[in-house]
Amino acid sequence: MTPDSTTANKAIQHARQQQDVYMKGFYELLKIPSISTDMSYKGEVERCANWIVDEMKRIGLSGARAIPTSGHPVVYGEWLGAGADKPTVLLYAHYDVQPVDPLALWDNPPFEPTLRDGRLYARGVCDDKSAVWGILKSLESMLAAGGTLPVNIKIFFEGEEESGSPSMEPFIVAHKDMLKADLFLICDGGFDLDNPEQIYAVRGIVGIEVTVTGPDHDLHSGMYGGAVHNPLHVVGKIISSFHDDAGRIQIAGYYDRVKALSVREKANLDALVEPQVEELKKKAGVSKFWAESLGSFADRTMALPTLDVNGMWGGYQGEGTKTVLPSQASFKATLRLVPDQDPHEIGRLLDQHVQQFASDTVKIETRVSGHGWPCTFLFEGPVVDALNQCYVTTIGKPPVWTRVGGSIPISGMFQRELGAPMSGIGFGSGDNYHAPNEYLIVDQFQLAIDTFIHFMYRLAEPGVVAR
Amino acid sequence: MTPDSTTANKAIQHARQQQDVYMKGFYELLKIPSISTDMSYKGEVERCANWIVDEMKRIGLSGARAIPTSGHPVVYGEWLGAGADKPTVLLYAHYDVQPVDPLALWDNPPFEPTLRDGRLYARGVCDDKSAVWGILKSLESMLAAGGTLPVNIKIFFEGEEESGSPSMEPFIVAHKDMLKADLFLICDGGFDLDNPEQIYAVRGIVGIEVTVTGPDHDLHSGMYGGAVHNPLHVVGKIISSFHDDAGRIQIAGYYDRVKALSVREKANLDALVEPQVEELKKKAGVSKFWAESLGSFADRTMALPTLDVNGMWGGYQGEGTKTVLPSQASFKATLRLVPDQDPHEIGRLLDQHVQQFASDTVKIETRVSGHGWPCTFLFEGPVVDALNQCYVTTIGKPPVWTRVGGSIPISGMFQRELGAPMSGIGFGSGDNYHAPNEYLIVDQFQLAIDTFIHFMYRLAEPGVVAR
Repeated sequence: MTPDSTTANKAIQHARQQQDVYMKGFYELLKIPSISTDMSYKGEVERCANWIVDEMKRIGLSGARAIPTSGHPVVYGEWLGAGADKPTVLLYAHYDVQPVDPLALWDNPPFEPTLRDGRLYARGVCDDKSAVWGILKSLESMLAAGGTLPVNIKIFFEGEEESGSPSMEPFIVAHKDMLKADLFLICDGGFDLDNPEQIYAVRGIVGIEVTVTGPDHDLHSGMYGGAVHNPLHVVGKIISSFHDDAGRIQIAGYYDRVKALSVREKANLDALVEPQVEELKKKAGVSKFWAESLGSFADRTMALPTLDVNGMWGGYQGEGTKTVLPSQASFKATLRLVPDQDPHEIGRLLDQHVQQFASDTVKIETRVSGHGWPCTFLFEGPVVDALNQCYVTTIGKPPVWTRVGGSIPISGMFQRELGAPMSGIGFGSGDNYHAPNEYLIVDQFQLAIDTFIHFMYRLAEPGVVAR
Repeated sequence: MTPDSTTANKAIQHARQQQDVYMKGFYELLKIPSISTDMSYKGEVERCANWIVDEMKRIGLSGARAIPTSGHPVVYGEWLGAGADKPTVLLYAHYDVQPVDPLALWDNPPFEPTLRDGRLYARGVCDDKSAVWGILKSLESMLAAGGTLPVNIKIFFEGEEESGSPSMEPFIVAHKDMLKADLFLICDGGFDLDNPEQIYAVRGIVGIEVTVTGPDHDLHSGMYGGAVHNPLHVVGKIISSFHDDAGRIQIAGYYDRVKALSVREKANLDALVEPQVEELKKKAGVSKFWAESLGSFADRTMALPTLDVNGMWGGYQGEGTKTVLPSQASFKATLRLVPDQDPHEIGRLLDQHVQQFASDTVKIETRVSGHGWPCTFLFEGPVVDALNQCYVTTIGKPPVWTRVGGSIPISGMFQRELGAPMSGIGFGSGDNYHAPNEYLIVDQFQLAIDTFIHFMYRLAEPGVVAR
């Protein structure tokens, strides 16, 4: 046992002794409804940022502060006492959470964390407050155990991840010196004992909101139906035009820059994902997956871009019948992009596609937003090896290295603007991300903290992080 | 001047002297939110029925009562003192109203009647409480002027017109004796000084509500998008499939029984409607009408059947972005039918059409409802002549005889079950039916009452109503 692994174990022991105290603090964090996508929660997002800053100060981080942006604040803090011979690691997580609707499907109020059978239920308990809290409690335990941290640490907690990170690109450009690091660790993922995974690629994203306007006020469908173009019908035509019956996206030029997986990468991903497909069906609550002619499950959810309408609305949604021909209808969609798609280019192609449906009988307004670049992390070398070994130490097997279907817009910005290598480690040991009854398995969360602590000490070893 | 026209004029004079008192009562009626389509207003619909019964009793009608049905009550009352040599006329109107949303677009609360520039704004002020009130105040004035009514009267005020009259067919079948009459007058239309119209045909209707279910709970579109069939996409495909780009409905067999207008009828309708098309555009708030290759405006809104989606919803409708792949999406549509379409047959064809989109990746549930038969009224003969002459007396010109795009489900039931000839007279001297800021022009409403009173006296003349 090296001196450092002794210290790591001391830190882990400390974290476990403090579990009750730490969980109490976690509950407080989870109670703050930091929904970034709904501006009526702006004050709560800010309150959450300030609450975390206080916690950072209490732990002993330097320069802890909530930095205003044009959107929600960035929470920043650092501990640079490891010395110039040690690498600087920037830890990223996000403290904002998804909206909670449909609220009726939650078994407990989403901002009243509730423990049932070892599972802690709350909005954001996995995504991504598990990482915010896991990082802070790991650092606190390491400082308690060793009086010092093994590497220099910078913390960047975002408040806009769930709303497409609209202020982050200018923020990063304006704070390049502050954010300079030798390694970026994106802490926004799962931690699964049975099927541990480590992400090495995330998809990009671009979103659109479309409003179709027909008549300038709602009409009686019995008087004007058949002679006035119904904007709901046009929304139907637009949504219908996005995919052919096989599920292939029909936007001109959409697939032009999509890079096929290498044979080795595809074989690895399929070997990893295919055995899980039956289990994934159960998790998704479907009897059959869709668009199977386009590729394997891994191809469709990781290597190919997608387009999903996330919401649509128009006309009468109440009980019974209302014979209205509505003035407007709307929908929102998000597109997941893969290397080498450019979110700005795809946003333009998407906009052009939708605008084709404008005519002399309906007006179409579009708002394209939330451009996020696809991004690739380290997938071999000493950082990857070190992380694998930490997993073996804590849970007996290394993670499987995989792409992920989701998007972390910030990672593409880090990669494009700051250039340092990037990896990730997740704390989200649960399920129902973005859905009702999001939960974290508390015992496994503790193992994620153990793994993270080991990893920090390993990153301090010479030659692990390139300088 | 015949003795009867003297009495008619006395009744009209009485109605005008009482205008302030009558309007005060009208405000009370308009304040009751009798929204039949939303079951949470069931008590208000009943309160409205009872309020009208009290008013009927006060006026001196016999047998006034609210008769329960499996849905909302029918308000019935009669005055049969004109003698066996006089015809019996059944007067139909409806006391239920449309829902009010979008509430934000109303300039006053919809159930707080507000007078601005001679226009009275309230939900139902035209459609169809103007007829309920116009009939009652006409009868009250005739009784005050002559102590008697010129014909025997039965009143049938429906409480389900705006929700597709689901209980009316069994009700009519069960009350054939009570409803027996020599002439049915459907009082559910407009009264326009500049372009007076009289309806001689209404369209039928059938409605559908469709729910598409994909996964059994909401999913993260980044994790499952591309592999799980998104029910919003399927709703898009279904809605898109209803019309081709020209606007022609694509349900197999939909047009099979549609009877073309006769050359004379088409010429009459086009001569009537085409000169109004520019004005109708302004009223509808559009710069161009739709589906022009299918026929003239009159063809498309009166002689051809239509299909309009009235509402659709699914997924996230709030501010900002939510990367959800929703479990369900829904829409409602209503179809306007023309002679000789059968609403039950069309309902089945529609259901079959929608069910084609069910698959091993999405489930589709449909509810077809509100079957209403298309219906044809008198369009020549002494009743029509009498009504024309009454219009000439009060506003200087006869109405133009026209079909109407809307539906009055009850009229098809009267025609099919009770067999008596049918005509109509409207009191709705305003606009924005089914839309925010529905209004009635008060002075014109008074002229509608005048016309109705004249008409009642004319119907008493020998040979006008066939016995």
